[in-house]
Amino acid sequence: MSKPQVWTWEPNSNSGKPLFALCQKGVEFDYHYVNMTDFEHHSPEYLARNPAGTLPTMEHDGKVFTESTPVCEYIDAAWPDQGPRMVPPDPRERYRMREIGRRITRHAAALSVLGWHNFVGPMARSKTQEERDRIIARIPTKERRIAWQTAMSATFTETQLAEARAAVGRGVMEMEELLTQNPFLAGPAYTIADLDAFANFYSLPMTVPEYANKEKAPRYIDWLIRIYNMPGTMEAFGLARSLARRAFTLKAELEAGRQPVQVTLAEVQRQDAEAKGGGASR
Amino acid sequence: MSKPQVWTWEPNSNSGKPLFALCQKGVEFDYHYVNMTDFEHHSPEYLARNPAGTLPTMEHDGKVFTESTPVCEYIDAAWPDQGPRMVPPDPRERYRMREIGRRITRHAAALSVLGWHNFVGPMARSKTQEERDRIIARIPTKERRIAWQTAMSATFTETQLAEARAAVGRGVMEMEELLTQNPFLAGPAYTIADLDAFANFYSLPMTVPEYANKEKAPRYIDWLIRIYNMPGTMEAFGLARSLARRAFTLKAELEAGRQPVQVTLAEVQRQDAEAKGGGASR
Repeated sequence: MSKPQVWTWEPNSNSGKPLFALCQKGVEFDYHYVNMTDFEHHSPEYLARNPAGTLPTMEHDGKVFTESTPVCEYIDAAWPDQGPRMVPPDPRERYRMREIGRRITRHAAALSVLGWHNFVGPMARSKTQEERDRIIARIPTKERRIAWQTAMSATFTETQLAEARAAVGRGVMEMEELLTQNPFLAGPAYTIADLDAFANFYSLPMTVPEYANKEKAPRYIDWLIRIYNMPGTMEAFGLARSLARRAFTLKAELEAGRQPVQVTLAEVQRQDAEAKGGGASR
Repeated sequence: MSKPQVWTWEPNSNSGKPLFALCQKGVEFDYHYVNMTDFEHHSPEYLARNPAGTLPTMEHDGKVFTESTPVCEYIDAAWPDQGPRMVPPDPRERYRMREIGRRITRHAAALSVLGWHNFVGPMARSKTQEERDRIIARIPTKERRIAWQTAMSATFTETQLAEARAAVGRGVMEMEELLTQNPFLAGPAYTIADLDAFANFYSLPMTVPEYANKEKAPRYIDWLIRIYNMPGTMEAFGLARSLARRAFTLKAELEAGRQPVQVTLAEVQRQDAEAKGGGASR
């Protein structure tokens, strides 16, 4: 089979899912970095591959794959004999994996409010009006142009931010509760439910330390450490050039039993500046 | 294997998905009608089975299944030799089924605005304040109590309704475009992507006739007629006691080449009144 090609941003949230799946299974692939904070996913080259302008995009054997969780199920099925199986063979366990994956992923919307507030929004607003107009103009649909225009200047009230933090906190508690029953979210073994949840929530001890700490959520913290130490996880984070480099600090601090401190926007922007350049092969 | 038990509302939207899957595969099951417009899904008996209070709930071999699309994948896998296979064996085709299913289902949120405006909202508002207070009081979480309290009194502006209609119309056009490539949404054969889309969108010729008509969307209309005529489809609609009985009119009118006319709220309420009673076995 041919080598998969992946166009995506950081190993973070939806962008990260195929990177974790491929690295954890040990499948070779070419990685093409798409700088989301520069809105490169709305560039004509990217839209030619994925007209919806969503991240990630994977190509394999002439087919295009863009829905991040189904992409991971595909990767597991396409390389059944390579690395761990991430989809259980029993239909009841497969159902449970998909149920838990969907339930936990619903908390990601609240987290994206915090991600926007802390990083993406300030980065977008640091651009000149001319750059912003150019970025908006190439967004594929009118609906999404309006949505991004609003988002670019959007700021959140303290109440909205507190509500988003509380909603993410409920996600932490839901994971904690599931982990009282099993070592992984959907049962005894690692599945794509864990992959999905980890891709979205690997950094919560930085983002919502008031919930994601070893007193309130000890099983969640242990689960994070276990996944940070799985073969392939840090290899995936090694592809990061910006925001997701915080994973190295997170891993070290959690292993030392300390609560990690949120990286600053300035630190992320410094890494972004260093990373300017073309695609890389892995 | 034991006989599955299904607690759900009408063969309509998420509630209908396991009913279509079981009937189309010819799997025997017990059907327990949950009257959503009376908010029976928030009753203590229902919450004991499914604490989230979502519809549907299926039980089989001692396990509980509540996520409507993964339930259908489970049904196909648990009865592999009964009726048609709804999940293709090739991993690329399985991916495509899941991608298309998710893409098309995204248009269902706009449709639910119209469903609420036409039926569910007026039915909820027709209750006495005392009934409404009782209904709200038993909703499992504070968040959802607030959401339902708002929804109960919510009305939409003409602009909001026009936007929802246009969004549903874009869904019709997306299905039409996919059906220029293949006879079913995700390829040459019926899959769970078709089941999902049909459960959500079987009634659009009534709801948005300005888009879902044989001039603008001839392939979508043909696809509807094809699925209305699949073994098991009308058997599932035969379980309807209220809103989804419109499927019989829809099928007859579409087959006669006519545009069906939306059923009235009064007609649905008359059927509801007739249907008052306990569960039924199939």
